[in-house]
Amino acid sequence: MGLVVQKYGGSSVADAEGIKRVAKRIVEAKKNGHQVVVVVSAMGDTTDELIDLAEQVSPMPAGREFDMLLTAGERISMALLAMAIKNLGHEAQSFTGSQAGVITDSVHNKARIIDVTPGRIRTALDEGNIAIVAGFQGVSQDKKDITTLGRGGSDTTAVALAAALDAEVCEIYTDVDGVFTADPRVVKKAKKIDWISFEDMLELAASGSKVLLHRCVEYARRYNIPIHVRSSFSGLQGTWVSNEPTGDKVEQAIISGVAHDTSEAKITVVGVPDKPGEAAAIFRAVADAEINIDMIVQNVSAASTGLTDISFTLPKAEGRKAIDALEKAKTAIGFDSLRYDDQIGKISLVGAGMKTNPGVTADFFRALSDAGVNIELISTSEIRISVVTRADDVNEAVTAVHSAFGLDSDSDEAVVYGGTGR
Amino acid sequence: MGLVVQKYGGSSVADAEGIKRVAKRIVEAKKNGHQVVVVVSAMGDTTDELIDLAEQVSPMPAGREFDMLLTAGERISMALLAMAIKNLGHEAQSFTGSQAGVITDSVHNKARIIDVTPGRIRTALDEGNIAIVAGFQGVSQDKKDITTLGRGGSDTTAVALAAALDAEVCEIYTDVDGVFTADPRVVKKAKKIDWISFEDMLELAASGSKVLLHRCVEYARRYNIPIHVRSSFSGLQGTWVSNEPTGDKVEQAIISGVAHDTSEAKITVVGVPDKPGEAAAIFRAVADAEINIDMIVQNVSAASTGLTDISFTLPKAEGRKAIDALEKAKTAIGFDSLRYDDQIGKISLVGAGMKTNPGVTADFFRALSDAGVNIELISTSEIRISVVTRADDVNEAVTAVHSAFGLDSDSDEAVVYGGTGR
Repeated sequence: MGLVVQKYGGSSVADAEGIKRVAKRIVEAKKNGHQVVVVVSAMGDTTDELIDLAEQVSPMPAGREFDMLLTAGERISMALLAMAIKNLGHEAQSFTGSQAGVITDSVHNKARIIDVTPGRIRTALDEGNIAIVAGFQGVSQDKKDITTLGRGGSDTTAVALAAALDAEVCEIYTDVDGVFTADPRVVKKAKKIDWISFEDMLELAASGSKVLLHRCVEYARRYNIPIHVRSSFSGLQGTWVSNEPTGDKVEQAIISGVAHDTSEAKITVVGVPDKPGEAAAIFRAVADAEINIDMIVQNVSAASTGLTDISFTLPKAEGRKAIDALEKAKTAIGFDSLRYDDQIGKISLVGAGMKTNPGVTADFFRALSDAGVNIELISTSEIRISVVTRADDVNEAVTAVHSAFGLDSDSDEAVVYGGTGR
Repeated sequence: MGLVVQKYGGSSVADAEGIKRVAKRIVEAKKNGHQVVVVVSAMGDTTDELIDLAEQVSPMPAGREFDMLLTAGERISMALLAMAIKNLGHEAQSFTGSQAGVITDSVHNKARIIDVTPGRIRTALDEGNIAIVAGFQGVSQDKKDITTLGRGGSDTTAVALAAALDAEVCEIYTDVDGVFTADPRVVKKAKKIDWISFEDMLELAASGSKVLLHRCVEYARRYNIPIHVRSSFSGLQGTWVSNEPTGDKVEQAIISGVAHDTSEAKITVVGVPDKPGEAAAIFRAVADAEINIDMIVQNVSAASTGLTDISFTLPKAEGRKAIDALEKAKTAIGFDSLRYDDQIGKISLVGAGMKTNPGVTADFFRALSDAGVNIELISTSEIRISVVTRADDVNEAVTAVHSAFGLDSDSDEAVVYGGTGR
């Protein structure tokens, strides 16, 4: 039996009862002969409460101090978890990100892990301890200041430690049973996925699936660490994310799932002179404001006017900033006006099988059309098709597509394509 | 203008408003040209809430993890305070005890400071920052584990940093105006003391005065760091504690104040054979149970029986443990029975003038007698007289003694003695 890294999110350790339940599960793994490293998030809403406090004392909290503040949350949960384990008669030691050797760059609030030197963790394990590590935090390489990895950073901590310790698996415990073929709150017939490739999981994460963050999956793929996403409230097998299917029966599905995202808005730049360099000027202005954009589409130019429209999508939270940046550059770029639309939704179909199966795209559009959903923008990758629709249409669109591709839990089997290309 | 260390307690930073008020005061000191190091406690009841959580997950929380847990409290307050200061346009950096170089032994929950290496604080100050340091915590020299200094430890952190940084003064900000001649909640006419010597302050602290902890005063005396105890809610001068009186008008009072303590209990060991080694056996049994005792009195032996009684006082919280330890040793020691009495109180008169002024002791007993207060035990040091009375008599006794020694705020002046000896 090798080493396992287990990660428990805030909802799993929301109160003393939760902590005791998690402690039992950890001890179980230890009893089964594993060396166990546990990464834990802050309890329940602790992080939000700390952010609220920060906003009360300062409208723009400084990054270094903000990180110092937030890391208190994991310090509390990890110490309580270690106590609860010791209370069950097993040895446990808790470690801050810094003590665990999680070395990051100096970008406060969203630092990136640049190295993991888990010497103290190794020693603790060798001495028979269960090691509890604070998720979401590290220490900066140059200044030795406390940093945080941004929301969802605990998953990344877990995967990074799993890589550094050469773990068999990184188990991500959460409040759902695994990764589903669609959001079960929207699609009642969504099914738990037994296995999914890193690539498909990356596309799902990028398309609005919230179970695993893109950065964490990326890290796991780079170091080839299998992730097992599962519920901390049940003993069920969850979803395995890895390079190769696990188990005999699991085969790669053509379509992994349908993701949706209603957190984006659309900006249309109206009346852009149709000449070289115009699009570049627009996206330079947006990039200079440090805004990440998602989809882009340029309409066909009307020959009579020589003007065109350019639309793109971006996180709603950055809408104001983007509008301001473009207004400032209006004269230089020379467009007519801006249109802002935050009533949009994005539906994405993800699956590596798309590459070799023709007809997926056509079936996708037909499903949307049959459901009466109008498409506003389209974007594709090798293993994903995404469309933008009205926000009101999203739930119906996801449900329709999920059903059309045979993903519903009462379907006999998924749709099978022959041939290559789509 | 030199360096000042300011310490703010939990009640001063109980909420966002408190933190902002304290931030303003700190900036004031900085504007006045001082280099400022601030030691801060956890917000309001945070520490108690964390202790409560720990008890929910484990009846006997492990020391190392308990310390890891508790130190989260100061991490929150120090980060928020640094943010609030930055919001006022001044540079501030927060440091954990470990980052500030507070090195301790490995006795978790009540570690002692063995060295302070404030290199990062010096650098922060030299770069023009206000340095905010987490009180109450350090890092153990041998294992590099997080430790806490026990209740009231933030005052000790402040004095230790003041010593290591060669500060002009260590300002202890609290929710009262300073050290009083008696507890103002009991004696309405109690006066704020302008200056008090380290020696008298040590006796007051040992006798039940809660404003400063004994350990903190001891540390300040050893390194000769003047302490200024004052309110964080007003701009008033508080009480200076130092070797030499400050200011022209301040002279050493004969009597510094009257302290009282109702946190102790009395155990009487009844029917102890009056022969050598008996007392030693009793106190060995108590000491082996790691109980600190305060006053001891042995009654005159009754010649007819050859038996005597021995009484001693100890913290109520340790009463159960002491009784158990003595019961276990009953046969070996050979006493008849134990009497436990937790309805006692202690009144202490403290003042260096006692050494050179006869009559203080007599006046003290007359004041108690006039107030109809019965004395059960007596203990004295060079600069202190303490008596044990019924708990119900304590308030009346303190008030009577305070008045008899001319300490009341409407007295023209304190009682003056001539001659030497008491």
